[in-house]
Amino acid sequence: MTTTPATTDNPTTAASQVTVLGLGSMGSAIARTFVERGYRTTVWNRTASKCAPLVDVGATASATATEAVAASPLVVVCLLDSAAVDEVLASVDDVVEGKVLVNLTSGSPAQARTNERWASEHGAEYIDGKLMGDPPYVGTSNFTVLLSGSRSAFDAHESALRVLGGVGYHGEDAGLAAVEFMAQVAMGYEMLIGFLHVLKLVRAEGGDVTEFAERFVGSLAAYAPLLTGIAKAVASGEYPPDLGPLRVQAALMNDMIDHRESVGVEAMRMRQVKELMDRRIAGGNGEQGFSSLFELLEREG
Amino acid sequence: MTTTPATTDNPTTAASQVTVLGLGSMGSAIARTFVERGYRTTVWNRTASKCAPLVDVGATASATATEAVAASPLVVVCLLDSAAVDEVLASVDDVVEGKVLVNLTSGSPAQARTNERWASEHGAEYIDGKLMGDPPYVGTSNFTVLLSGSRSAFDAHESALRVLGGVGYHGEDAGLAAVEFMAQVAMGYEMLIGFLHVLKLVRAEGGDVTEFAERFVGSLAAYAPLLTGIAKAVASGEYPPDLGPLRVQAALMNDMIDHRESVGVEAMRMRQVKELMDRRIAGGNGEQGFSSLFELLEREG
Repeated sequence: MTTTPATTDNPTTAASQVTVLGLGSMGSAIARTFVERGYRTTVWNRTASKCAPLVDVGATASATATEAVAASPLVVVCLLDSAAVDEVLASVDDVVEGKVLVNLTSGSPAQARTNERWASEHGAEYIDGKLMGDPPYVGTSNFTVLLSGSRSAFDAHESALRVLGGVGYHGEDAGLAAVEFMAQVAMGYEMLIGFLHVLKLVRAEGGDVTEFAERFVGSLAAYAPLLTGIAKAVASGEYPPDLGPLRVQAALMNDMIDHRESVGVEAMRMRQVKELMDRRIAGGNGEQGFSSLFELLEREG
Repeated sequence: MTTTPATTDNPTTAASQVTVLGLGSMGSAIARTFVERGYRTTVWNRTASKCAPLVDVGATASATATEAVAASPLVVVCLLDSAAVDEVLASVDDVVEGKVLVNLTSGSPAQARTNERWASEHGAEYIDGKLMGDPPYVGTSNFTVLLSGSRSAFDAHESALRVLGGVGYHGEDAGLAAVEFMAQVAMGYEMLIGFLHVLKLVRAEGGDVTEFAERFVGSLAAYAPLLTGIAKAVASGEYPPDLGPLRVQAALMNDMIDHRESVGVEAMRMRQVKELMDRRIAGGNGEQGFSSLFELLEREG
């Protein structure tokens, strides 16, 4: 995704105070990064011993979550799961007024929106964040923070959030960071599981899997205009014959299914695609492109 | 895929004679390209009227396939399907000795290997080719010809084949061009059908599909090292925690399945991935990476 590089500002203003609730491997990396960039950092963790390494480098440990929240205008929450977030937020409900809560815990778009409502009811501003990258990369350009929620809170604390890595702001709806995360990660797994099946096919036919990978990687850039074209077709509801007309593509799909079955490679997606193509063709849309299958997906579920 | 640009040589030697059997839209574009590049081009088509536009630009039409094959050392076959190839080859079996047959008709790796045996039994050399691109792009760098089969025949006729577009030679096994085609095309459809489902998810959650596409396209290059790493893991049988250990990835997969179901987006691939991950974890391999799922795929089918 498009990101901006982490900043290297060393802030000295009053805005340079931050609290981090939750010191698992990710929360600890975040707190340590804030300390290293000169933020006056307050930390809290249910198991207090996790605070010690942060205190060693200059953080202040609070004995209670309430005390930690009271210490800073900006409160970063990074817990195990949404249940833990619910529990900790409930315990600090009398001190969050006027605070900015940035919740970086894993969770769904619906959970983000529920947290946003809770914050609003308690006089706090809420930003939801989803993290792409492992703890060792916090504070580098190889770490990305997807954010959504209060625009004014984002604007006020953008420089602090940029300390953590590349930052993308996805809109006022607090659920949108989680939507972006689910969508980006799904594309990754779609590509990777498809790739594993294709590697099986290549190997079954006597090809070299690493050489195939090099060639496929060399073709990745060619997918950019195709993907953006398909998204535009979906957005407009006009479906030009992107990869050729569906009636031609459907014949190719039959060949691929037959071939995969002949070498013992599953054809789940190819069968799904073929079935959708056949329905579009039967409906008189055989001259349209692959993008037109979206019409059928929209009617399902 | 990696290709080399089409050449612009204008050959004048005896090697500049080529026959094209089959003048559908693709065969016609191929024949026309040879004529335009100065090749002495002989054409044949079952329905003879298809020859006229090529004769108009300088090709010679043969009344029979036998006569056409006899006219040139290099015979390019581009017919509707493998059944048509079988029929035409059987009709020219007494004149193919010493010829190089380049069959660009759609078909499976097994069909290519069958053709190779037939050619060998009849004293001809065989190259199988699969085409990536539409007829208007023949002769440009936006057209790719995947080739495999006789290396000596490829070396002797490489310059003629490069007239058609970018050329990749995939090995002496005549089936390998079709394998490469099936693998490359499958990766395209895996990515595109996954993308359509993800666009449905983005739209269902109030996101903008074209903006999402722009961001995903911006992240495509980041998949290159991941994909080559996974292929290396598969080749070596060592599976480092590419995207993190499987036990962590499996939890994420549950979140994604739940989320997709909550917004009516199918989760076919995510469920498959989760089931494979669970089996690897149950087998004591929860610290390995995504690539290790290949071990389970290899045992199936």
